Amino acid sequence: MLITFEGIDGAGKSTQVKKLKKHLTEKGHEVLTLREPGGTIVAEKIRDLLLESKHEITPVGELLLFSASRAELVQNVIMPELERNKVVILDRFYDSTTAYQGYGRGLDLQVLERINSISSFGLEPDLTFFLDISPEDALIRKFSEKSIPLAFEENELDRMESSGLAFYQKVRNGYLKLAESNKRFVLLNASEKPHDIHSQIVAKLNAMT
Amino acid sequence: MLITFEGIDGAGKSTQVKKLKKHLTEKGHEVLTLREPGGTIVAEKIRDLLLESKHEITPVGELLLFSASRAELVQNVIMPELERNKVVILDRFYDSTTAYQGYGRGLDLQVLERINSISSFGLEPDLTFFLDISPEDALIRKFSEKSIPLAFEENELDRMESSGLAFYQKVRNGYLKLAESNKRFVLLNASEKPHDIHSQIVAKLNAMT
Repeated sequence: MLITFEGIDGAGKSTQVKKLKKHLTEKGHEVLTLREPGGTIVAEKIRDLLLESKHEITPVGELLLFSASRAELVQNVIMPELERNKVVILDRFYDSTTAYQGYGRGLDLQVLERINSISSFGLEPDLTFFLDISPEDALIRKFSEKSIPLAFEENELDRMESSGLAFYQKVRNGYLKLAESNKRFVLLNASEKPHDIHSQIVAKLNAMT
Repeated sequence: MLITFEGIDGAGKSTQVKKLKKHLTEKGHEVLTLREPGGTIVAEKIRDLLLESKHEITPVGELLLFSASRAELVQNVIMPELERNKVVILDRFYDSTTAYQGYGRGLDLQVLERINSISSFGLEPDLTFFLDISPEDALIRKFSEKSIPLAFEENELDRMESSGLAFYQKVRNGYLKLAESNKRFVLLNASEKPHDIHSQIVAKLNAMT
């Protein structure tokens, strides 16, 4: 089973990924969690390139780099682990590409669909939890997390995060459109308490199986 | 004007690129020569990743990395320079992707066509000189070039070159098919003397203008 988490930065995806991993492991499943971009030696090198703030990357270059990282992860890790009957939980997958590069940066959505299908070898998540939050609330959360220690704040604000609130609003709207038109999407209010969100995720999974 | 040089490694592309640059510069043109992958800071980093022999990269990952490097080069350098009326000469362009990743590694040719069009923003060369040589002759040439100094030989045989003769035969056949079906291709016998090949290139250009 392939479960993905989506949402803008600061929506609380990694918290929910951890909680779900713990829950499923306790229920006896073998669970692997991965984050995109990254997850293999080559994919991590691509991640470094994408998130280094000093290099300006064109939107198409960015798209192709994210996709290259994804192809490495899908072929070398995700597909083999799914075949071993593991539950794979992804912190971001190709819906991020559609939301960020498509709705956010304005790249052609049909082009993205093709690239997404190529980079994922046609693999589709069984379930996608979309943690919805306003960019303003996400930013406040992100900054308050990062305030300890204060000295690191600036370094940690990577290239992707310096794109501004208007950009994140477009990304959020993109996610909302994806959630409307894809049955595998589960829309969750990310402003609720982490524990309550987790309960909704577990309820959804229980209803499915 | 955009002129590309294609052919398997060891066909003598870089020699011909230099000769043509010299010729066109002497005739009063502003000429820019570039090699793929590479040509911008980000593209050079991608080049390093692609040519480092210690990391195994999947064929699709390789395709997308080459394409990302191309998108960076086309948007940041090639298109602006063409607009300034420069003659741009490329040592490899997307026909390399079709020949190497398509015919060589067996990726779907329709998929490649789409990716090539995305990464080049629809830009097409005015003229493509294909330097045709058998893989055996190319290898002999490559090794004899590299024998000075001998100590560096092994380091210089990068990942792409360790793929074997059978692979290069497939790539060559791919180029021959491209040359058959594309009017912009000029097929040249790369086993001839560099000076003679150069004369044929100049004759072709003169016939065009």
